[in-house]
Amino acid sequence: MKRLLLVTLTVLLLGNVSVFAKNKIDHLEPAFWWVGMKNTNLQLLVHGENIAELQAEIDYPGVSIEKVSKVENPNYMFIDLKLSTELTAGSFDILFKKGKRTVVKYNYELKERRKGSAERKSFTSADAMYLITPDRFANGNPDNDNVKGLSDGLNREDKSGRHGGDIQGMIDNLDYISDMGFTSIWINPLLENNQTMSYHGYATTDYYKIDERFGSNEEYLNLSKLAEEKGIGIIMDVILNHCGSEHWWMKDMPSKDWINNEGEFISCTHKRTTVQDKYASKEDLKQFTDGWFVKEMPDLNQRNPFMANYLIQNAIWWVEYANLYGIRVDTFPYSDAEFLREWDLRLLAEYPNLNIVGEEWSTNPTIVSYWQKGKQNKDGYDSKLPSLMDFPMQHKLVEALTQEDTWGTGLIRLYELLVNDVLYPDPNNLVIFPDNHDMARIFDQVDRDYDLYKMAMTYVLTMRGIPQVYYGTEILAKSDAGGDHGLLRIDFPGGWAGDKVNAFTGQGLGEQEKNAQAFCKTILNWRKNKEVIHSGKLMHYAPDMGLYSFFRYSDTEKVMVILNKNIESVKLNTKRYHEMLGGKSSVKDIITGETFELNDSFDIPARSTMILEVN
Amino acid sequence: MKRLLLVTLTVLLLGNVSVFAKNKIDHLEPAFWWVGMKNTNLQLLVHGENIAELQAEIDYPGVSIEKVSKVENPNYMFIDLKLSTELTAGSFDILFKKGKRTVVKYNYELKERRKGSAERKSFTSADAMYLITPDRFANGNPDNDNVKGLSDGLNREDKSGRHGGDIQGMIDNLDYISDMGFTSIWINPLLENNQTMSYHGYATTDYYKIDERFGSNEEYLNLSKLAEEKGIGIIMDVILNHCGSEHWWMKDMPSKDWINNEGEFISCTHKRTTVQDKYASKEDLKQFTDGWFVKEMPDLNQRNPFMANYLIQNAIWWVEYANLYGIRVDTFPYSDAEFLREWDLRLLAEYPNLNIVGEEWSTNPTIVSYWQKGKQNKDGYDSKLPSLMDFPMQHKLVEALTQEDTWGTGLIRLYELLVNDVLYPDPNNLVIFPDNHDMARIFDQVDRDYDLYKMAMTYVLTMRGIPQVYYGTEILAKSDAGGDHGLLRIDFPGGWAGDKVNAFTGQGLGEQEKNAQAFCKTILNWRKNKEVIHSGKLMHYAPDMGLYSFFRYSDTEKVMVILNKNIESVKLNTKRYHEMLGGKSSVKDIITGETFELNDSFDIPARSTMILEVN
Repeated sequence: MKRLLLVTLTVLLLGNVSVFAKNKIDHLEPAFWWVGMKNTNLQLLVHGENIAELQAEIDYPGVSIEKVSKVENPNYMFIDLKLSTELTAGSFDILFKKGKRTVVKYNYELKERRKGSAERKSFTSADAMYLITPDRFANGNPDNDNVKGLSDGLNREDKSGRHGGDIQGMIDNLDYISDMGFTSIWINPLLENNQTMSYHGYATTDYYKIDERFGSNEEYLNLSKLAEEKGIGIIMDVILNHCGSEHWWMKDMPSKDWINNEGEFISCTHKRTTVQDKYASKEDLKQFTDGWFVKEMPDLNQRNPFMANYLIQNAIWWVEYANLYGIRVDTFPYSDAEFLREWDLRLLAEYPNLNIVGEEWSTNPTIVSYWQKGKQNKDGYDSKLPSLMDFPMQHKLVEALTQEDTWGTGLIRLYELLVNDVLYPDPNNLVIFPDNHDMARIFDQVDRDYDLYKMAMTYVLTMRGIPQVYYGTEILAKSDAGGDHGLLRIDFPGGWAGDKVNAFTGQGLGEQEKNAQAFCKTILNWRKNKEVIHSGKLMHYAPDMGLYSFFRYSDTEKVMVILNKNIESVKLNTKRYHEMLGGKSSVKDIITGETFELNDSFDIPARSTMILEVN
Repeated sequence: MKRLLLVTLTVLLLGNVSVFAKNKIDHLEPAFWWVGMKNTNLQLLVHGENIAELQAEIDYPGVSIEKVSKVENPNYMFIDLKLSTELTAGSFDILFKKGKRTVVKYNYELKERRKGSAERKSFTSADAMYLITPDRFANGNPDNDNVKGLSDGLNREDKSGRHGGDIQGMIDNLDYISDMGFTSIWINPLLENNQTMSYHGYATTDYYKIDERFGSNEEYLNLSKLAEEKGIGIIMDVILNHCGSEHWWMKDMPSKDWINNEGEFISCTHKRTTVQDKYASKEDLKQFTDGWFVKEMPDLNQRNPFMANYLIQNAIWWVEYANLYGIRVDTFPYSDAEFLREWDLRLLAEYPNLNIVGEEWSTNPTIVSYWQKGKQNKDGYDSKLPSLMDFPMQHKLVEALTQEDTWGTGLIRLYELLVNDVLYPDPNNLVIFPDNHDMARIFDQVDRDYDLYKMAMTYVLTMRGIPQVYYGTEILAKSDAGGDHGLLRIDFPGGWAGDKVNAFTGQGLGEQEKNAQAFCKTILNWRKNKEVIHSGKLMHYAPDMGLYSFFRYSDTEKVMVILNKNIESVKLNTKRYHEMLGGKSSVKDIITGETFELNDSFDIPARSTMILEVN
């Protein structure tokens, strides 16, 4: 019908009268940019009915149009700009003309960059990361619980519904996060998800807009500013593999190859090894790379260079706009491998110190390590991704704590895991965690055994790598592992007006929950300035009869960590530790604050965890 | 008492009268050698009371004594000979003199080498290996069941006792082994074990002597000759880590450091990762390397250069003497790593094509692959060992077959395993196996499910690598996994006079046992000349709903292997396999012999295994 009308218009309005009937641009992205970026190219996606029939013009010193590309769909135009290195900040009109007539114009701004933006610091093993599912942490602004035009409304009764948490809720509780000892927050995606089952945020419907139920771009920027003032960096959760099925471009795709499988759903095999497997069939590889994660998440084709550019610029835009401290990449291996390298390289070219951590959910270190920057893979591939989530360690941690200690089970699993560190170019730049938003809480994973919980937290907060704690895990949040993912992501108590329990103040928390919170807080705050934990060496001792011990050490400091799973206390012979303890006379237990002398042996209480500063 | 007597003798027989009272040499090893070896050095261990007080002399053209070394114990002397490259075979006396008087002499022979000995061929992936525990295979010579002077007598009632199997038993049944389709035999150790619990052979009490209950050195050589005539190579099981506690030298050690921990028992930690672990403590490493495997197996100190030389020469001696086709090394990582490299290098210097497979019983490919020749380890170490036992594959094979097929369990385990092949310099030179002498039979490991058994055997006999089958596994031998190792090592039915069941002839075997034997025989014989299985490439398809398939392929041949765990037949869509099947019109099932046309799909029967030659 529309097509018929257009044809009619074209016939009626011959000559220099525009067929660009609507006279407006629906999307122009990125909406603004910055001067002084290392890359002097900028590609604009312009979307509007029959936009391809217009000519773009710019008259601004230092900005030139290098190329205008048309694609299958005439409603798109891609404009390649060249930005002079001499350019000064300011704004100018982009004119879209039909012959000599300007049909529509767009005022484009090139902003000044924040000072030191390129050299920004990023998260390292000196940090501790708090992971928040924003819908479930705190509802700071009930006014945005329901937003007109956004499909999901508030429904706290529904485990998969929106519960109202938002950016204001995080802003309100920055002191809590800071006091706990965290120095960065990885927030699950905040971008608009205007479709059903939207609370988790992984079905983006607008790459440049914070979901209004969470707040606005400005509020996000404000969160970042306020967090930075408290020594907390914001880590954005970036999804490169897929968008939401209600993304605006799904209704009017630039080209058939914008979305994999020509925009039609076929399921991804989720066989992640296929990418690296030299024996894999090409057919399987295609089904993995081109299959969709789920039907509601169309699979982006990053082999389309416009799509690739779009995703790269989008990530840079958010780092620059929101002053990000780092990036976490969702479902990393699901995207095209060559694209991933390009994406990483271009981000790192702009921000050489930026840390980016990818999710490769495999318990096999061979598979995870394949992606880490500097890895000398047999196939010659190097993704340039600096960091990975250490799923193998999480897996072994739970096995180690829950299995009986025998020849091949229990703590030996953790001991033997670390031999795989040879596979990683930089084991200390892995993110380690007891649990996350996609799995049961660690307290549940260790069968709600509080002693084991403390061992898990102690391990993660003192081992090599960058610790990450999921919000609520510090107060023994429970989860229904077998149930819906929504159940893993509890409403943090105290985050909603009228909550009877308030974990921010401690009001109404049980004794064990309070104890756990204090336990984590003590270690996290101690860890904050403990260089030997951030970057010290590691020496561990083979587990013996249910007891595992390791040291973090440097030329000036030594910390001994002991996990004792035994139901009786153990007398530890210090002789075995002479390499580490030789010449040292006393230790300080950083949990209890007690100091005691080092003799030939000392007692490790039953089922206990000790972190000992060796003096 | 002995010492007192000696002192008395010394006092009485002053001057040029020898204190070497016994006038005899207890041990001189190796007892003979060969001319024309690449290494022109030969070190003789000489043991006899006060031998160190004598001077050794040789008068033979081309043989010179380079150096005579004394050690702590005067009952030992190590003579370094230099053998000229011009040397001709022959024999000569080694004179042991006190001043001008020859106290004792030893006639030493330098033999001619077998033609082509240095360039001997060895086992490869073109072979199929039959593993035999000689005490339990066939009793060919009841006369040697009890041998005077050897502690264990025949006791077939005792699961850990000697059952009488011997070399003659293997000679008698070479036709069976050959007819089954095997091309090599790895025999568990045959060297003398003159101590209790000796049937397994892993407690050597004489490094140069076949245990008389198995036969003699000459019989062993004869076995090797007769086997070779049938196209079967003999692979020797070599133990470098330990000897038996009743080894003769344990009563009179050359030096305190001949055996680790000065000859006193301390237990090995068996924490094998420690060797490779950059975080391991030196203390733990020492406890692993120097600890004894068990109390009955003193731990050899290969850092003692005389010990190292002894073990190296001993292995070369057996290769040369018995015309070996290869070597299997027991408990490989338990020995000193630098020694292992030296041992491998010297063997490979003499026999460049010799294949040697080491046992590193870990299910982690990172750990196993560390040892393979050509591995570029981060610590710079390369053991030079050509082959390893693929324990990770064995482990995943059982998991794959016995677990329910879900997202992360079942056949996917096998599929995902193979991505680790990037860790190995040469995956095709790994020995793969469904079971061995140290674990339950595969039929038990798959819960006596015959369909799964066939899948296991099919996989091992068609996958990359060198297949190894434990004697009896081809007739569904059962084992008590939880019980004693002795129960894993059944008496092969038909190996003993009077056996009611005879697996060599088939008499008395159950239908399923006969079927299994025929099944293995068919595949093994087909495999014998199937180059595409020996050295073809591999392509596998991600398991889907309980069905796993892979191809072995070359420019000229293609074989498709299908394992279907489903309890219903599966219609296989050939479209998915177009990379491999494209343009091919028919396949031949090598088990049934049937040929059928390739259409859009074909039926895979419930719980079946197919090996299809694609034509």
